[in-house]
Amino acid sequence: MIDNKKPLAVVAVSGGMDSCVTAALAKENYTLAFAHFNYGQKTEKRELKAFNDIADFYNVSHRLIFDFTHFSKIGGSSLTDNNIEIARADLSSKEIPNSYVPFRNANILSACVSWAEVIDAKAIFIGAVYEDASGYPDCRPQFYEAYQRMVDLGTKPETEIKIITPIINLSKAEIVRKGTELNAPLHLTWSCYKSEEEACGECDSCAFRLRGFQQAEIEDMIKYSVKPNYF
Amino acid sequence: MIDNKKPLAVVAVSGGMDSCVTAALAKENYTLAFAHFNYGQKTEKRELKAFNDIADFYNVSHRLIFDFTHFSKIGGSSLTDNNIEIARADLSSKEIPNSYVPFRNANILSACVSWAEVIDAKAIFIGAVYEDASGYPDCRPQFYEAYQRMVDLGTKPETEIKIITPIINLSKAEIVRKGTELNAPLHLTWSCYKSEEEACGECDSCAFRLRGFQQAEIEDMIKYSVKPNYF
Repeated sequence: MIDNKKPLAVVAVSGGMDSCVTAALAKENYTLAFAHFNYGQKTEKRELKAFNDIADFYNVSHRLIFDFTHFSKIGGSSLTDNNIEIARADLSSKEIPNSYVPFRNANILSACVSWAEVIDAKAIFIGAVYEDASGYPDCRPQFYEAYQRMVDLGTKPETEIKIITPIINLSKAEIVRKGTELNAPLHLTWSCYKSEEEACGECDSCAFRLRGFQQAEIEDMIKYSVKPNYF
Repeated sequence: MIDNKKPLAVVAVSGGMDSCVTAALAKENYTLAFAHFNYGQKTEKRELKAFNDIADFYNVSHRLIFDFTHFSKIGGSSLTDNNIEIARADLSSKEIPNSYVPFRNANILSACVSWAEVIDAKAIFIGAVYEDASGYPDCRPQFYEAYQRMVDLGTKPETEIKIITPIINLSKAEIVRKGTELNAPLHLTWSCYKSEEEACGECDSCAFRLRGFQQAEIEDMIKYSVKPNYF
């Protein structure tokens, strides 16, 4: 009998909408292993719940929580530093917002590669979005191409790990539609940077998410304190 | 008055001989910031003491300890997994030894870049050694070149951080001689993978170190349980 079990893939799952849809896409060709990162973000408790809810939804048994406590020590971002306030969204700005966590995605991917090398996973999925997002440098497609090359050179000769960013060029509306089409549990996700009870509706992350749902003409089932019209 | 203060550099300091000599070299052109990584290695307590002793020696005020507890969860290396025994050295082997911690240096560098971006450091020094070492893939010069490109693409446009590996092509004997010439505090360093009291003299790390001192005809001032002749 041929072993037709799908190969393992590590998916970096924050608990937000993008990583949820990324997991739904990874599931088509891989057995899922979920990695979550606590980097001292203000809404970590709520994000961790979303992570576990999504993992339960997909019956994921391989789960690893990484405690990246050093990001709180380093600071420099409104997400991790209590002295920096989380700004209201400005979707037209071309500046990198103060929610940028310095070089976060390289740290996340590096830990995923370490785990993948040990459990023999063949791919790492990360839900980076570039065009329709905040313009963080570690979300650029070229960054992931350079990252792939670095992985090929820095792991064992027999290790082959593909870095996959399946939604990097999608708009938020396309992500909402794709998630809905794949029955991804968007109602279990959490995106707000600021609040853990009801989503604030006003931070960058809420604004991009809400605009995506509004453009896709699909209702966002999570609760918001305010729900501005961004479309 | 011209501000002639040297720019900051983050130095990854394990507490071993290589990172100590790397720090001595960094000091020539930079103000030092020391980063240390607890990744669950068996001799971390002793390494942390060496780190602080070297930092005290150089009057380093910027110090950051990164708790990379995830490497113990991941396992897969004799340095972090109690179920895998630390092997006796085989300096002629071309195999990657089981002390390889998967993709460790990429994790270390990524955290250093995050810190460097926040404190505006212009360089990161890491004491990787390739030719005269265990052949870990994340110690290859090509890996660091690819890593540099990835950093350039993944950080803010105004961020410029050079990744510097000043001893990567030196032999261990040359490292010992260079350290002695620069008055680096080699007597404060710790290299043994296995023991925290007296260096075992028999693990890979002890063997490469001892052979370096023997080839350089310089006495290694730390205590060993046994001191084989590797030359």
